[in-house]
Amino acid sequence: MKSSVQISTLQNGIRVVSENFPHSGTVALGAWVAAGGRCETEKNNGISHFLEHMAFKGTTTRTAKQIAEEIERVGGYLNAYTAREETAYYAHLLKEDLAVGVEILSDILISPTFCAEELERERGVILQEIGRAQDSPDSIVFDHLQQTAYPNQPMGRSILGPQSVVSSLSVQDLRVYRDHFYRGPHFVFSAAGNVDHDILVQLVSKAFPSLPAAPSGHTLDPARYQGGVLADTRPLEQVHITFGVEGVAFSDPDYYVSALFDAILGTGMSSRLFQEVREKRGLVYSVHSFHSSYKDSGLFGIYAGTGEEKCEELIKVVRDECHKMAEGVRDEEMQRARAQFKSSLLMAAESPSAVCMRNAEHLLIYDRIIPREEMIAQAEAVTSQQIARFSERLFQNKALTLAVVGPVKENTAQHLAALFQSA
Amino acid sequence: MKSSVQISTLQNGIRVVSENFPHSGTVALGAWVAAGGRCETEKNNGISHFLEHMAFKGTTTRTAKQIAEEIERVGGYLNAYTAREETAYYAHLLKEDLAVGVEILSDILISPTFCAEELERERGVILQEIGRAQDSPDSIVFDHLQQTAYPNQPMGRSILGPQSVVSSLSVQDLRVYRDHFYRGPHFVFSAAGNVDHDILVQLVSKAFPSLPAAPSGHTLDPARYQGGVLADTRPLEQVHITFGVEGVAFSDPDYYVSALFDAILGTGMSSRLFQEVREKRGLVYSVHSFHSSYKDSGLFGIYAGTGEEKCEELIKVVRDECHKMAEGVRDEEMQRARAQFKSSLLMAAESPSAVCMRNAEHLLIYDRIIPREEMIAQAEAVTSQQIARFSERLFQNKALTLAVVGPVKENTAQHLAALFQSA
Repeated sequence: MKSSVQISTLQNGIRVVSENFPHSGTVALGAWVAAGGRCETEKNNGISHFLEHMAFKGTTTRTAKQIAEEIERVGGYLNAYTAREETAYYAHLLKEDLAVGVEILSDILISPTFCAEELERERGVILQEIGRAQDSPDSIVFDHLQQTAYPNQPMGRSILGPQSVVSSLSVQDLRVYRDHFYRGPHFVFSAAGNVDHDILVQLVSKAFPSLPAAPSGHTLDPARYQGGVLADTRPLEQVHITFGVEGVAFSDPDYYVSALFDAILGTGMSSRLFQEVREKRGLVYSVHSFHSSYKDSGLFGIYAGTGEEKCEELIKVVRDECHKMAEGVRDEEMQRARAQFKSSLLMAAESPSAVCMRNAEHLLIYDRIIPREEMIAQAEAVTSQQIARFSERLFQNKALTLAVVGPVKENTAQHLAALFQSA
Repeated sequence: MKSSVQISTLQNGIRVVSENFPHSGTVALGAWVAAGGRCETEKNNGISHFLEHMAFKGTTTRTAKQIAEEIERVGGYLNAYTAREETAYYAHLLKEDLAVGVEILSDILISPTFCAEELERERGVILQEIGRAQDSPDSIVFDHLQQTAYPNQPMGRSILGPQSVVSSLSVQDLRVYRDHFYRGPHFVFSAAGNVDHDILVQLVSKAFPSLPAAPSGHTLDPARYQGGVLADTRPLEQVHITFGVEGVAFSDPDYYVSALFDAILGTGMSSRLFQEVREKRGLVYSVHSFHSSYKDSGLFGIYAGTGEEKCEELIKVVRDECHKMAEGVRDEEMQRARAQFKSSLLMAAESPSAVCMRNAEHLLIYDRIIPREEMIAQAEAVTSQQIARFSERLFQNKALTLAVVGPVKENTAQHLAALFQSA
């Protein structure tokens, strides 16, 4: 699929990026803001996400209902998410409706009213969202993992925040937070699909005049990986287990090594974990590894869900597979990991919404968009020696994190963690 | 995005369909079989899904590991799903790897070995999958809804099957089931993306020579909607509630009316349920309606998750919104529903995997592929009078299904159902 990327920076610091697919009939677009859970304190934990919700609750010229109706009456789709280092507001529309998308996104970002009555109702919605998350063991276990890996610091806190803080946040809190972080230099406006860059820049310039051009000056509390053990004991069918060790930051020289290591150890059906844990032993339905990167840290993790009586065997097999990575990987495994890296990039390159998100994230993280060919070349250059060495970096004498949700008590979880760390 | 659809029928009855996107760099392809949960009895409930799992467990020429490796070493992705009226095996690959995809898909479908040892291990995997499903209240509640809507019949049973049946299925059971249903006339092989129809037909003809050309002669047990109340009492944060009434079959003259009715009542942020339940009252994080169609029946349903103390208010609001649909809908609502119908079709038309699945399903359901323009014209033709009349068809004196998972007992669930049915 042919496409071309263009970037412009507006006077107030907003970066506007477009990737044009002339054959597409749609356009994905959105605003990414460099503000998220990591910008919070213990006292306002959950405010980034609360602010994201309140953006949809009315502006100086539109009610919440009008916002929804204006996008949906042209068949568009509007949504948002909050992460640790960013918040995103995005839409997907037919190509002729680009201006509608820019108009609505700018209005909810520039002119939210934070009406007190709406805030109270939305508090109720968020408390229900927290309840729903608590009821999903295979999702909440990742919150536990993060919290145990990075205790007592912004990096470890949940995005939704605890009920107690969500119950206390005020209109004034939201205003202060927003005024501090929602500034031009922290914004990327991205669009991908059938979109003309000049028209996009014109629309965004007109729509975002009032954002301050000065940066917030905020410095992130550095991430301090620590590790530990957490058991959330519940009467469930499965024990939902996550392991973590400190991984790599986005800028780490081992970033591409980590991606290939992850693929070989635990992504896909031919990965070592899938073959050893599921295919050879039938211990699980789900097992996979993952690697999350941040500005200054990262988490390498593994998820598996199994019956209580199979936990010990599972831990031993996972442990052995992690350590075996240091003994070297086969050429076929390297080839597969490289091919998967390349094809997943090329497949995502065909989806306007995936491209829109990728470009915005690259500008926030790297201040440039890394061309796909450069990423593929980086992955091609990773050697099996680097994979083996990276295994030692991850697992040798490193503090482990283990979080479980299910029919397992604290002391059993401690025992499982010790088992993982015994060689 | 320009594309062209072509269909061929092979000698053994397999229909081959392709939709070519000349600008794409990838191809999605798969085999859809008209066999699923509805073809099962109480004694073999879960066998369609077990068979789907066993397809990946080795053939006369490949081990399970080789199957995974051959697809993934070219960066491809292979997966499968089992539904009530179909089972699908599909892949997504770079365009130059079409032949690899056809070869692997045909091998796992034509020549599985059903090795007894592999079967035992896979039984363990499926039992873990059942455990995982049981632990997800917002997913298992839909199984409960189906079972309560269609009690004691194939249409109501779960796709995974109960642990007791999964524990008892044998190699011989799988062979008998497969030989009966896996026949040329019940197969559609679909591909979408950068694909040449003639090459695809050649590859599929060569790869699927041995499927019987005679149909199974099986007649489906007709779906008999009944309704009722089920409470799965658990100590959760939320009550996960689903409502259902009998909906429409694929061939029902009201099929497009149902789609627009669903959009106006409960799809998207400007839908009535979202506005009344979440935006005006803050009762939930999630609320939406859905309509599932089958060959001879359908289920129209609503999902909502809320706190125990808010259930009564929720039920009353949902009930009132359902009944208000009979009083008529506004022109803007009709326009929005039509626009959403159209744009979701056009957005899906840009995704090779979505198009591949759509074309296969249309051939299985309608014996033809309904052009997008025809579907859009059908949706455009629906009137607000039809929507109001359809509301009466759904809700007037009709047996309700209500299934809940959460901190609610059987008698409370009965009370909630009665509340919904009081006018």
